[in-house]
Amino acid sequence: MDNFISQGHWFYVAVMLIGALYFYIQSREPKGVPKYEYMIAIFIPVWSAIAYFSIAAGQGFLEVSERTVYFARYLDWVFTTPLLLVALAFTAMYYTKKNISIILSLVFLDVIMILTGLIASLSESPLNYAWYSIGTVALLIIFYIVWVPLKNIAKKSDEKLYHHYRNVALYLTLFWIGYPTAWLLGPSGLGIVSQSIDVTAFILLPIFSKVGFSIFDLKGLRDLEPQTIRQNKN
Amino acid sequence: MDNFISQGHWFYVAVMLIGALYFYIQSREPKGVPKYEYMIAIFIPVWSAIAYFSIAAGQGFLEVSERTVYFARYLDWVFTTPLLLVALAFTAMYYTKKNISIILSLVFLDVIMILTGLIASLSESPLNYAWYSIGTVALLIIFYIVWVPLKNIAKKSDEKLYHHYRNVALYLTLFWIGYPTAWLLGPSGLGIVSQSIDVTAFILLPIFSKVGFSIFDLKGLRDLEPQTIRQNKN
Amino acid sequence: MDNFISQGHWFYVAVMLIGALYFYIQSREPKGVPKYEYMIAIFIPVWSAIAYFSIAAGQGFLEVSERTVYFARYLDWVFTTPLLLVALAFTAMYYTKKNISIILSLVFLDVIMILTGLIASLSESPLNYAWYSIGTVALLIIFYIVWVPLKNIAKKSDEKLYHHYRNVALYLTLFWIGYPTAWLLGPSGLGIVSQSIDVTAFILLPIFSKVGFSIFDLKGLRDLEPQTIRQNKN
Repeated sequence: MDNFISQGHWFYVAVMLIGALYFYIQSREPKGVPKYEYMIAIFIPVWSAIAYFSIAAGQGFLEVSERTVYFARYLDWVFTTPLLLVALAFTAMYYTKKNISIILSLVFLDVIMILTGLIASLSESPLNYAWYSIGTVALLIIFYIVWVPLKNIAKKSDEKLYHHYRNVALYLTLFWIGYPTAWLLGPSGLGIVSQSIDVTAFILLPIFSKVGFSIFDLKGLRDLEPQTIRQNKN
Repeated sequence: MDNFISQGHWFYVAVMLIGALYFYIQSREPKGVPKYEYMIAIFIPVWSAIAYFSIAAGQGFLEVSERTVYFARYLDWVFTTPLLLVALAFTAMYYTKKNISIILSLVFLDVIMILTGLIASLSESPLNYAWYSIGTVALLIIFYIVWVPLKNIAKKSDEKLYHHYRNVALYLTLFWIGYPTAWLLGPSGLGIVSQSIDVTAFILLPIFSKVGFSIFDLKGLRDLEPQTIRQNKN
Repeated sequence: MDNFISQGHWFYVAVMLIGALYFYIQSREPKGVPKYEYMIAIFIPVWSAIAYFSIAAGQGFLEVSERTVYFARYLDWVFTTPLLLVALAFTAMYYTKKNISIILSLVFLDVIMILTGLIASLSESPLNYAWYSIGTVALLIIFYIVWVPLKNIAKKSDEKLYHHYRNVALYLTLFWIGYPTAWLLGPSGLGIVSQSIDVTAFILLPIFSKVGFSIFDLKGLRDLEPQTIRQNKN
């Protein structure tokens, strides 16, 4: 692994840890946002930092038939991406009772997406595309849940919340389209772009979709009327 | 892997996906049965279809000292069999508060049973029988919980529910005796029956004990008086 | 593996199973302590017994560059140590609403500690010390949670409970300092002590910190005023 790639991963670790520290500081003055929202925002970058530390240290990847498979990315994603969906679902259900069926469905589909992605990256063509397709179907159903049932819950709940939910849902959707696109163009898929561009994409994309997402989401929730005040009104 | 075995696994994948679709259609008209009951019924065959897809595609097994170990079966079971027990426990507790201790005990024992089964199938004789015995002890304790505390909960709860619970518990018990029997007769155990019969058993058994079980269980629950009406009476 | 080491592991399996049986017998006369407290106390030694059975049977370890890595220990710990922390947190929150954020934080940090410990024991020097340091940071944050927020919850709750909590927290803290110390002195770390002493340490330490801890913790809880009586007073 050349120097540029290694430095990129160290940079990523630093950004994640700074992000986690920032959310911890925010949690000291929660502004009515429940503690578990901050906890999720902290867990995600800490876990991701450790996964990328293993890559930076030269351990979290292996060579499979002349291409590099960064399996540590999947160890990262299998934990952090379900948490991101849980955070998004909690935002939609901010003022309402948590719908466990919807949350578990999102987690189930997400775990399928990540595991099939891992198998895809370890498989040879054309089988890797079969696995990739299963993961893409799971992602499309996730998008359906985000934009139909979850959006409806937010819509029925509160005007300002609905506005915030649509923004964070759009933000997450756009970045999550970025992941499979980068995957497909990189060495695990078509192999059109170089290793360096692939690595850069998987450093920048998660910075925005992890720390960026939580900054955006928590900012909106902190500007909303606190749950406790709302519940006392009803 | 010869053609017959491969086609059997493709057939299995198709049956599982049709089953999942059927439960999804049922969930659109839930007849008072909570959404999470349908969700469990859908998760099970979808996960199992993906596991068997890996076998059909030639990946979910490996050769260990001249016999074939289908490790994808254990990846299937470690997720689907706890869910089946959770579904059965939810049926017993349909009208009563969910007893978390009983449910977690079932899941704990079941995970031990599947993991020891996996280790058994990777071990040489006579160590494989030691692991197999531990798994069998776990299964016997599961049967005890199904037929004593869970049955008592159903019995105290409602006459019609009790009748339904006994039927689905018997159905599950009989098929779950089939699994270790097939395992013992197959290549991982005594090796009495051929590879083809073993594969056929592990295609037919899960069709009945997964999709078959959920059809049977959901049919009974849909015929019962809905939980909500019952709770309003009390 | 020589005879002494093998016999030590068989002894450990026996102690764990006797411990589990003892907690099961206690649970038949729960003295107001909720069933799930006994369940946790039973799960821990049963799981640990199975993990050490795999070592005793000659399977749960492998040779990595001329030293023995007992990976089954980590399979043990990744399940049992979070449960021990959950049990400790439940003791602090015995009379109060369970604080899910604190419990999930403990579990998250603990899983990081065990996984980084596993990676450390598979890594070469000096990288193993980097992983070991991450695990130590996680442990220090666990100690902070045990001695600040959890202690405060117990303190505000009840005088007698507070007294008991401080005792079990001190007990767990001292033994949990023992683990990384033994690790560091053993073959995975500095390699100062011999294989036999290392194995003996990892047989004695978990007997005290698993079965010993639960005996101590449950005894205290059984001597407290039952939750149900307390709740009826308020």
